[in-house]
Amino acid sequence: MTQNNETTFRPEARSPRGFIDKRSGQIAIERRLIETVSKVYEDFGFEALQTPAFEYADALGKFLPDSDRPNVGVFAQQDDDDQWMALRYDLTAPLARFVAQNWETLPKPFRRYAFGPVWRNEKPGPGRLREFMQCDADIIGSDRPEADAEMIALAVAGYKALDVPARIRINNRKLLNGLLVSLGVTDSGQQLGVLRAIDKMDRFGPEGVALLLGAGRKDESGDYTKGAQLPDAAIQPVLDFVLAGGADTRSGVLEKLAAVLANSAEGQAGLEDLARINAAVSAMGVSEDEAIFDPGIVRGLEYYTGPVFEAEFLRELRDDKGNLVQMGSVGGGGRYDDLVARFTGQQTPATGFSFGVSRLAAALSLIDAGKRSGARGPIVIIAFSDSDMGEYFGFAAELRAAGLPAEVYLGRSGMKAQMKYADRRFSPAAVMIGEDELKSGTVTIKDLDLGRDLAMQISDNKAWREGRPGQVTLPRAEAVKHLKSIVES
Amino acid sequence: MTQNNETTFRPEARSPRGFIDKRSGQIAIERRLIETVSKVYEDFGFEALQTPAFEYADALGKFLPDSDRPNVGVFAQQDDDDQWMALRYDLTAPLARFVAQNWETLPKPFRRYAFGPVWRNEKPGPGRLREFMQCDADIIGSDRPEADAEMIALAVAGYKALDVPARIRINNRKLLNGLLVSLGVTDSGQQLGVLRAIDKMDRFGPEGVALLLGAGRKDESGDYTKGAQLPDAAIQPVLDFVLAGGADTRSGVLEKLAAVLANSAEGQAGLEDLARINAAVSAMGVSEDEAIFDPGIVRGLEYYTGPVFEAEFLRELRDDKGNLVQMGSVGGGGRYDDLVARFTGQQTPATGFSFGVSRLAAALSLIDAGKRSGARGPIVIIAFSDSDMGEYFGFAAELRAAGLPAEVYLGRSGMKAQMKYADRRFSPAAVMIGEDELKSGTVTIKDLDLGRDLAMQISDNKAWREGRPGQVTLPRAEAVKHLKSIVES
Repeated sequence: MTQNNETTFRPEARSPRGFIDKRSGQIAIERRLIETVSKVYEDFGFEALQTPAFEYADALGKFLPDSDRPNVGVFAQQDDDDQWMALRYDLTAPLARFVAQNWETLPKPFRRYAFGPVWRNEKPGPGRLREFMQCDADIIGSDRPEADAEMIALAVAGYKALDVPARIRINNRKLLNGLLVSLGVTDSGQQLGVLRAIDKMDRFGPEGVALLLGAGRKDESGDYTKGAQLPDAAIQPVLDFVLAGGADTRSGVLEKLAAVLANSAEGQAGLEDLARINAAVSAMGVSEDEAIFDPGIVRGLEYYTGPVFEAEFLRELRDDKGNLVQMGSVGGGGRYDDLVARFTGQQTPATGFSFGVSRLAAALSLIDAGKRSGARGPIVIIAFSDSDMGEYFGFAAELRAAGLPAEVYLGRSGMKAQMKYADRRFSPAAVMIGEDELKSGTVTIKDLDLGRDLAMQISDNKAWREGRPGQVTLPRAEAVKHLKSIVES
Repeated sequence: MTQNNETTFRPEARSPRGFIDKRSGQIAIERRLIETVSKVYEDFGFEALQTPAFEYADALGKFLPDSDRPNVGVFAQQDDDDQWMALRYDLTAPLARFVAQNWETLPKPFRRYAFGPVWRNEKPGPGRLREFMQCDADIIGSDRPEADAEMIALAVAGYKALDVPARIRINNRKLLNGLLVSLGVTDSGQQLGVLRAIDKMDRFGPEGVALLLGAGRKDESGDYTKGAQLPDAAIQPVLDFVLAGGADTRSGVLEKLAAVLANSAEGQAGLEDLARINAAVSAMGVSEDEAIFDPGIVRGLEYYTGPVFEAEFLRELRDDKGNLVQMGSVGGGGRYDDLVARFTGQQTPATGFSFGVSRLAAALSLIDAGKRSGARGPIVIIAFSDSDMGEYFGFAAELRAAGLPAEVYLGRSGMKAQMKYADRRFSPAAVMIGEDELKSGTVTIKDLDLGRDLAMQISDNKAWREGRPGQVTLPRAEAVKHLKSIVES
């Protein structure tokens, strides 16, 4: 047997960098998130799909939306037959492979949702893991703007179900494309410069962005950033375009944009998409607070081919030190009509939305902080005597039958260590069935939550010990009911 | 943008061998299985743990219980710093790493459950995948036989919750070990021969096994299998030992074994373990039908160091061609006290149970066959006219708010294709809101389940078309209620 070999090599117990163990509290939050969102996906008519961890590397391609890291690494290796395969780095590339492979037999449009880990072979850092969860829904095979509207309504319903305050900001790549072409800006490098300038609106305001659209901008430290070199006549239309997002309502934004984009056929087509999206999401009861049009949204414009969506987290969160936590985007998506074409050569319209699992889990964990949830342990039955183990197990079975998680302590330590164990498990209660209790047909129950709460109020150790806060002895017939009331409080 | 590059290379849409896509029906079954078993794990006081896909190869070690394939492959690759890492091949080796790494701060005994995919780099074949699910619970740090009893009671509760008829067969490595030593059989090759002979009891009966324990056995075709070469005096005690499993009750088996093992201290110790296991599982209400002692259980004896458990599926299942499906074992486990010692040098008692996810999913899928579950699609609202899309989406939102999965058809095909779509999605109903319906404030609902059922009874096509089975037109105010009754029927 290998484990009994004579070598004394002892591997160090550690994980590769960028990979973490998750304990019950974090797992409970992620699971609640995934289950809640999955339910919404199914309510919207999406069917579940699971593709494997490995894909052939050529089928996977390089399709990361984040263009800052185009050479992002994957975990790749050669199969027995020398073909390269790699772990999926997102859920979209495998979806494209699946759709191309099964197109004939799929119900079309094909609505699927998926969740699961993805892997990226990158330098790990704070908050950047090499294995993390994604959770996506996509509609493949519909060119209707109403399909985009469904993704938006779905996102709104998802955040609502999660009780996470969020707003979807919607843009359309056709708008800025159309505007720039109508202004004579067709050089892709210059277009990229415009995108970068627009993305700075929050930090530098209209004046700063105007400089970045033109010659360039010098900051307080004297550093100079070269601008997009737009001619003067083009700068104001671009600013008007971005600032149209300031209107209060979706139709208000569309009206302002209609004026700015009057000279662009592509821009008008983009507005027509958005008008139909507005009609459909309005019909589904999506309010102006939940989804708005914002031509200043830049992220994803390079990757997506039509409407883009970005979910903005709306609440200020503070960590346990009181510092403000910047949540940023908690989800996003858009229309990408080129993905399946890699395999088939034919464009297939597609639109999707992805919930940002890690950030949402972090947000939910901050929102939940202090609540007793998730990592809640079982009721612990103290083991006094080997000969009474049958009594303990019988009571454990009663509790489980009543829907109360319970266990008998299975170590060999004394009372104090057992209470410490129950505390570490964050148990709601400890149960003592000692000699006295067995004689009198009773059970002693210690409410550990109450004990924890009282412990914070009582400063006098003696009073504490004598009072035995939260401890009662009851006839055994009443014990399950009492424990139920503790667990449910 | 990479997807617009000028090369015309088109990868073939396919998956590496041994990796499969899972569709909604299969996913629903696996999810129900995992959720049901997780609930039972938590009722028994186990906390969830998720370890990453990758471990360092030295930490992972070679620890597969299945000794037939000791050189089973893993998916390994070198990290940036040249250290070898590999995808986990089970959930036990990562648990050992985690426990060794965190021993000081863990509540002890540490009860954890886990589920997730594992990967084996083997030759794929029919029913043998390179990625599959495992679902385990383990107690680390308790040497009490009651910890083994908990694993058995947990397994029984799990199968019961899944509504899967199963029985746990329990053996203890100490029994046969003790018997063989008391008979003077100490050579490990000879011991292995005894294990192999015992494992043939089902096929060859006591006479055949007696031959295999002795010189050897010639089968009908004339092929000769060499035996374990036990002396004649040792053969009958081994047979008596195995046949003691024929007793009706757990205590009956223990009584018979007590006689056979009278001369072995280790055997007596093993019986003492089983007696305490019997007391604890009996206290938890585990019946003789749900868990029995069976000294003939051989699988796992080489790997485990004490009690072993194997779950036997009790129902005859037939596939859609009427052929009997051999389910075999649907779970198993046992005590292994050496695992963490690889890291720490110190033995740490441990016991665990693993549900056989793939086989259980296959069984549940055969049991469910014909039921409308799992892959159930949404209510499909037919899209007649672009200008009425708002009406369709408004009704979809009403249905979703009532908890009914629903969608508007988003393709551009006509009525017939839309009905076919609803059929492919296995939708319970299609909703038609055409011009007539809009004028009269009504909704037409087609009960697709009823249509499918009636279609099987009606042979006359004309009668079928004229009768429009399962189709009704209702005032819109009554439509949601009617659809709810269809979905819930």
